[in-house]
Amino acid sequence: MPSQPTKELLAVANPHPGRNYDVRCDTPEFTCLCPLTGQPDFATVRISYVPDQSLVELKSLKLYLWSYRNEGGFHEDMTNRILDDLVAAIAPRRMTVVTDWLIRGGIHTVVEASHP
Amino acid sequence: MPSQPTKELLAVANPHPGRNYDVRCDTPEFTCLCPLTGQPDFATVRISYVPDQSLVELKSLKLYLWSYRNEGGFHEDMTNRILDDLVAAIAPRRMTVVTDWLIRGGIHTVVEASHP
Amino acid sequence: MPSQPTKELLAVANPHPGRNYDVRCDTPEFTCLCPLTGQPDFATVRISYVPDQSLVELKSLKLYLWSYRNEGGFHEDMTNRILDDLVAAIAPRRMTVVTDWLIRGGIHTVVEASHP
Amino acid sequence: MPSQPTKELLAVANPHPGRNYDVRCDTPEFTCLCPLTGQPDFATVRISYVPDQSLVELKSLKLYLWSYRNEGGFHEDMTNRILDDLVAAIAPRRMTVVTDWLIRGGIHTVVEASHP
Amino acid sequence: MPSQPTKELLAVANPHPGRNYDVRCDTPEFTCLCPLTGQPDFATVRISYVPDQSLVELKSLKLYLWSYRNEGGFHEDMTNRILDDLVAAIAPRRMTVVTDWLIRGGIHTVVEASHP
Amino acid sequence: MPSQPTKELLAVANPHPGRNYDVRCDTPEFTCLCPLTGQPDFATVRISYVPDQSLVELKSLKLYLWSYRNEGGFHEDMTNRILDDLVAAIAPRRMTVVTDWLIRGGIHTVVEASHP
Amino acid sequence: MPSQPTKELLAVANPHPGRNYDVRCDTPEFTCLCPLTGQPDFATVRISYVPDQSLVELKSLKLYLWSYRNEGGFHEDMTNRILDDLVAAIAPRRMTVVTDWLIRGGIHTVVEASHP
Amino acid sequence: MPSQPTKELLAVANPHPGRNYDVRCDTPEFTCLCPLTGQPDFATVRISYVPDQSLVELKSLKLYLWSYRNEGGFHEDMTNRILDDLVAAIAPRRMTVVTDWLIRGGIHTVVEASHP
Amino acid sequence: MPSQPTKELLAVANPHPGRNYDVRCDTPEFTCLCPLTGQPDFATVRISYVPDQSLVELKSLKLYLWSYRNEGGFHEDMTNRILDDLVAAIAPRRMTVVTDWLIRGGIHTVVEASHP
Amino acid sequence: MPSQPTKELLAVANPHPGRNYDVRCDTPEFTCLCPLTGQPDFATVRISYVPDQSLVELKSLKLYLWSYRNEGGFHEDMTNRILDDLVAAIAPRRMTVVTDWLIRGGIHTVVEASHP
Repeated sequence: MPSQPTKELLAVANPHPGRNYDVRCDTPEFTCLCPLTGQPDFATVRISYVPDQSLVELKSLKLYLWSYRNEGGFHEDMTNRILDDLVAAIAPRRMTVVTDWLIRGGIHTVVEASHP
Repeated sequence: MPSQPTKELLAVANPHPGRNYDVRCDTPEFTCLCPLTGQPDFATVRISYVPDQSLVELKSLKLYLWSYRNEGGFHEDMTNRILDDLVAAIAPRRMTVVTDWLIRGGIHTVVEASHP
Repeated sequence: MPSQPTKELLAVANPHPGRNYDVRCDTPEFTCLCPLTGQPDFATVRISYVPDQSLVELKSLKLYLWSYRNEGGFHEDMTNRILDDLVAAIAPRRMTVVTDWLIRGGIHTVVEASHP
Repeated sequence: MPSQPTKELLAVANPHPGRNYDVRCDTPEFTCLCPLTGQPDFATVRISYVPDQSLVELKSLKLYLWSYRNEGGFHEDMTNRILDDLVAAIAPRRMTVVTDWLIRGGIHTVVEASHP
Repeated sequence: MPSQPTKELLAVANPHPGRNYDVRCDTPEFTCLCPLTGQPDFATVRISYVPDQSLVELKSLKLYLWSYRNEGGFHEDMTNRILDDLVAAIAPRRMTVVTDWLIRGGIHTVVEASHP
Repeated sequence: MPSQPTKELLAVANPHPGRNYDVRCDTPEFTCLCPLTGQPDFATVRISYVPDQSLVELKSLKLYLWSYRNEGGFHEDMTNRILDDLVAAIAPRRMTVVTDWLIRGGIHTVVEASHP
Repeated sequence: MPSQPTKELLAVANPHPGRNYDVRCDTPEFTCLCPLTGQPDFATVRISYVPDQSLVELKSLKLYLWSYRNEGGFHEDMTNRILDDLVAAIAPRRMTVVTDWLIRGGIHTVVEASHP
Repeated sequence: MPSQPTKELLAVANPHPGRNYDVRCDTPEFTCLCPLTGQPDFATVRISYVPDQSLVELKSLKLYLWSYRNEGGFHEDMTNRILDDLVAAIAPRRMTVVTDWLIRGGIHTVVEASHP
Repeated sequence: MPSQPTKELLAVANPHPGRNYDVRCDTPEFTCLCPLTGQPDFATVRISYVPDQSLVELKSLKLYLWSYRNEGGFHEDMTNRILDDLVAAIAPRRMTVVTDWLIRGGIHTVVEASHP
Repeated sequence: MPSQPTKELLAVANPHPGRNYDVRCDTPEFTCLCPLTGQPDFATVRISYVPDQSLVELKSLKLYLWSYRNEGGFHEDMTNRILDDLVAAIAPRRMTVVTDWLIRGGIHTVVEASHP
């Protein structure tokens, strides 16, 4: 069965929970829909975190980001929702999510949210 | 009624058909589906042409590119289909379409097709 | 009725007021007039803020910046006025406005003002 | 009397008409209005030419480009009109005008026209 | 069964053989062994071709490049062998292979071979 | 009467003295003479400051920098003199002057001085 | 006898242990295997440290990094193991290891771990 | 006696006149005066040539370029004069002179002249 | 008598000892010998300091760096020796020396030492 | 016995003499002496060629370039001598040597010579 988009994020055990260290993932492959016009929006997503007992599994992260492809939402809302879902899934010690959006109306927008 | 994706490309009259000149359009906002796995692919599309009697109208071009969002196709096929559709719509004196795809399997692919 | 330049900035509700997070907008599409010579000046405008109860709506921001097109003002004054207007409209927790001006007299000028 | 925008381009004598040589001028300070929506468009303009008996005087070129500030026109039309006006003013042996426009609808457009 | 490195390159039918067009693939993920010291060498490989009746399938290309991981060979020899194998597999109208090697002995080396 | 180089720096009233904000000016158009050989030296000058009651007027700054064209001085001395003169003219809350010199004897030199 | 990959890291005496200073080494020549699929992964490794009584000898570092060529491991695990081995070998006052991995599944990953 | 600016360009014998080869010199250290306002202009000068029996000696080239420091002249005229002087001094088989001027009135200008 | 390499660094009086300010010098023109193989090594050297009563004279710095041309030494040792010699010569309030070495064994190394 | 600088260039058999292909080598690790002052000069050397029956062996090329470390020579002469020696050693079908020199007297110089 081929992969499907999903809101489920898979947690895997952190092999070195005794050390605070950073994991950073970024991808230019994020697209969703404008909540006002229904037209596609595009963003680069950057996630960085200090894991506690869990890491986010990368394939599930890919499928999770895919799940926004046909959803609408404001840039600020999307960013906070991604952060909330990741925090719920792996309970990191610290996490930051940045979304960097392609130009609309001549304006380039970036949103950055952190936990805690 | 909001804008919708469409395969129709709108032609507008070239105000200076007496001169050979170049029009170049590019956008990083192209996404379609892998024909094998159904997963999203992303590309930058670059179009350049010498118009004859018609120009391609930019908003219709945006809606046209949007129309691939839920279609599958090989990189080489997509590129040639975009070129064929544009040639059919505006019959340019010369046209080149380049698609530049985000990395899959560690490999970065670019396809370039020209008419005539 | 087509869009018009306006000094009114539209505030929309912040969907996540419980979290301090950053919103950054930038645009190279700012032009006004030199107060001494009346000739056009050009700048990139960069706005970053931590919202409280409101976000600035992006289309109104575009129309607001457009409203300076036929106004004169010193670089330092323009920057502080944009900051004052945005603070009045959305009362952010923190905000910074940067204007980055194209060269005049061989000198490149940048002005940066913050609230509070 | 302060400088004013003008459609008049000033020609000055080429001090070395016996040699074919290139003059290239570019400026990011071009703005006009969208003919459909009335909203501002922004472009970088690049002019290159081989002079015959005349050079274009740079200050008059600046005032000429300023004159488009409150005019509407399609990208393709603007480019050809600038080329036509420059050719009429200084009759160069060869000339190319390129306009490179800021993104609209996610699409970046460049137009290039040459004489003869 | 997981994927394995292989010298077999898979050819797929070119959907547009009536048109001469370019396909370009590049990857920084190439490593082999120095034939003199047995130590690893690293290169970026760039392949460009005009297909005739066949395209090279990308996953098989990835597995093919992987097959050099434990082989030794001089830079010039490797480059020509990759070209020969690709030509044998898909009989392109034109093809160029470039290998761009990480520095050895302070010297950066690039090899470029073409068919025909 | 045409503009002349001058050591006089013109102060203009700061329109927003109630706020600490930054003004940054930089120019690659600085040249003076080597105090040992009399040959020309070239530098980029970068000035940043937080104004108190006054701003430095940009045209007077240009003429001030021009005034060094036929003067000699060590890099370190020039930098401190420019800072001293600007501080004397506009009494900023904070100011930094950086001079970044083109290569002499294979060595690239930068001097940075701040007040207070 | 030619050089061989090895897990042994050679420590050499720090000639200036009385001073805290930084040593930074980086190399794009790191490759290992994916623990799930067995396919090659590629990373740039960046090591920075303040030595105490020992420095890491560079040739042994090269052979040590080579030793991962045929080993599998998650990105996060690899990074911490390299850090642990280096700390065991030279007991630095401070050390950071960063691994920066080529794209998999459209996602670029960086892991950074520090001691103590 | 210290070096002085001079219009004399020193020719030295080409050690390999039997081969057509290229010499390219460039420097950002060129300044002259605007013929209209008397204010300083700045340019990068790029010279490339195929020598015949003579090379231009580099120190004399430096002193020659210095000699324009207090002279006025239009960009196009300066470029052709430098070319004429160099051709007179060393009679190259081919030569190109490019001058690339810092921005005036928002416009960046480049002039390129070649012999023969 | 032509200039000679020397270990003597010339100190000149700081004209502004009353202010803490920065001087930064860097050069890509440093070469010495590998202490193990006798083969040449190459580095960029970056020096930054806050002078007290003395500045380092630039020509003597050039001759000092030249003096390492035929000497061997480990990267870490060289860096600390340059710092020690400069501190002995001009007793700065603060100084940092960075050496950035061309690649050996696929590894790029940077060493940074500071006083005090 | 450790490696020594040498003027001997080692030729190795071209494994694919039936095909015209390009080999390009470049290194920033070239230094010689100024023939007038005896001071060090530094250059990047770029060599590209189409081999006939022989390739240049890379280690011997490194030792050959090292051999100039204590020799003096004008930039133009050095470039042609390197080309002559390489042509004598491997008789390539075509070869180009470029030397790109660090700045002297504010002027950056590049020399390019080709055979035949």
